[in-house]
Amino acid sequence: MNVNAAPVPSALQAFTAPDTAFADWLAAGRQLVESELDRRLPPAGLQPAVLHEAMRYATLNGGKRLRGILALAVCESLGKDPARALLPAAALEAFHAYTLVHDDLPCMDDDDLRRGKPATHIRYGEANALLAGDALLTLACQWMAEAVTPLPHPPGALVLELTRAGGSTGVIGGQTEDLAAEDLPPDEARLLYIHTEKTARLIACACRVGAVAAGACAAKVDTFGEYGRHLGLAFQILDDILDATQATAILGKPAGSDAENHKLTTVSLWGLDKSRDEAQRHTDLAIAHLEKAQCNPGRLQALTRHLLSRIN
Amino acid sequence: MNVNAAPVPSALQAFTAPDTAFADWLAAGRQLVESELDRRLPPAGLQPAVLHEAMRYATLNGGKRLRGILALAVCESLGKDPARALLPAAALEAFHAYTLVHDDLPCMDDDDLRRGKPATHIRYGEANALLAGDALLTLACQWMAEAVTPLPHPPGALVLELTRAGGSTGVIGGQTEDLAAEDLPPDEARLLYIHTEKTARLIACACRVGAVAAGACAAKVDTFGEYGRHLGLAFQILDDILDATQATAILGKPAGSDAENHKLTTVSLWGLDKSRDEAQRHTDLAIAHLEKAQCNPGRLQALTRHLLSRIN
Repeated sequence: MNVNAAPVPSALQAFTAPDTAFADWLAAGRQLVESELDRRLPPAGLQPAVLHEAMRYATLNGGKRLRGILALAVCESLGKDPARALLPAAALEAFHAYTLVHDDLPCMDDDDLRRGKPATHIRYGEANALLAGDALLTLACQWMAEAVTPLPHPPGALVLELTRAGGSTGVIGGQTEDLAAEDLPPDEARLLYIHTEKTARLIACACRVGAVAAGACAAKVDTFGEYGRHLGLAFQILDDILDATQATAILGKPAGSDAENHKLTTVSLWGLDKSRDEAQRHTDLAIAHLEKAQCNPGRLQALTRHLLSRIN
Repeated sequence: MNVNAAPVPSALQAFTAPDTAFADWLAAGRQLVESELDRRLPPAGLQPAVLHEAMRYATLNGGKRLRGILALAVCESLGKDPARALLPAAALEAFHAYTLVHDDLPCMDDDDLRRGKPATHIRYGEANALLAGDALLTLACQWMAEAVTPLPHPPGALVLELTRAGGSTGVIGGQTEDLAAEDLPPDEARLLYIHTEKTARLIACACRVGAVAAGACAAKVDTFGEYGRHLGLAFQILDDILDATQATAILGKPAGSDAENHKLTTVSLWGLDKSRDEAQRHTDLAIAHLEKAQCNPGRLQALTRHLLSRIN
């Protein structure tokens, strides 16, 4: 888990150099986020040890770091040092980790596996997992408050980006409707609400946060938010497709768990073909917003197409 | 629940007038906090309705509002308009409500009653209660970011006060050790850690937040924090004594639940007499810190003595 020894300055160099191959750029971004998380999370031995171990277990678990990398990449696409977005990127990933820990709990989605390993509540017990999730959410807000918020944004703008996106009319609202939908007939409006709030909202937030950290104007922050929203919708549709079509070993979580839990998904509502079309449509819309953003879009375009390539 | 119709300007007047009787002053403070919460919490009809209803149910439930009133009273004791501390006071109470919702869950303390009514998870189900708690924590951080943070404090100071006090080395750490202690032999050092972090930390935070909102210097913020820490320790010892000695109807929660849950408490460790002595000692220390704070201490002294009077 300890990646402090990794040569982070070289990761930053690889992330910003224009000639880095895409796969290496992605790995460098992941390493930047990973080492910031490892450095900032409380050490595992700190009292209460079980809580801090659970927080590190839930966070440093081999995630793709899409949200963190997006914040760094948006900041860099605006010509600013991505290091400005590093602490906010870690906050986004700590927040995301909290949502996964709570979503996996028995009273929620009741998933025992996460990325091929026991879920946090299986490893540390339900109470400690619940508390570790609470602590990661709290820490994410703390890190957003500790990060520098450059002009023209008011102080607190980064905290507000996260808490508004992550709150009851955002990520938590989406999860609430997702659980409620298990007992209701399939409904397109509800599915769009769930995908928009539960998944796309935090991905859009990551893009907005990268733009705020770069000191972009409010209109540009909004454009990146729209880019992220469409990217997030494409991402969630792809996730639904993969859950329905791939094996447990590839997914790192039980395959077909959506169907088993009677989840409302694009696949259950639209079938595979229309789902693939919608993923493509949102990918195209995401890229169209990028082109409006007056940035250096190369890396973000490549990242956007890379995500879609998972099903093509 | 709707207290918007209440004459809040007159509550502010009653709270600040020097000749208001103590009981009326306390009621006015409670009304100020209550109406700020009611005004700021999302309306119950907003999607997802069950989530917003659960958030309001968990928060607007007849609490004493000790933490919110402390923030207002500290701000006022420094000669500043307590309205400056009103949004932070609501944030403290939303945070406190989240801790109660999560603490009552089956995997934690498994309490079915809270203030004489069904706990949030009994009324709305476990998943919705968990999510309502998450949303209240998120909203508390949002409100701290939205509140004005006056000089000499850096932007974000109010968010940092809450997140550092409420995180894994604060309130959440205390709850983690409290649960672990159920399976361990009684231990004085552990009990002090639990009382300090689980209870006294947020009460100290409330006092610090009131001083920050008043624009007090860092040394004075610390003095109010020490006042709050001793007040919080006295408060928790009193709570242990009341749990051991009073009936369910008076407590609004099952009497003797600490003993039934094998909780480590002052009463189980020290017995009643020494517990009463310790409550008195921390009350005296709290008042000694008040005297050092160069404030107008009358209301805070009365409030501190009022809390102790519950067992005398």
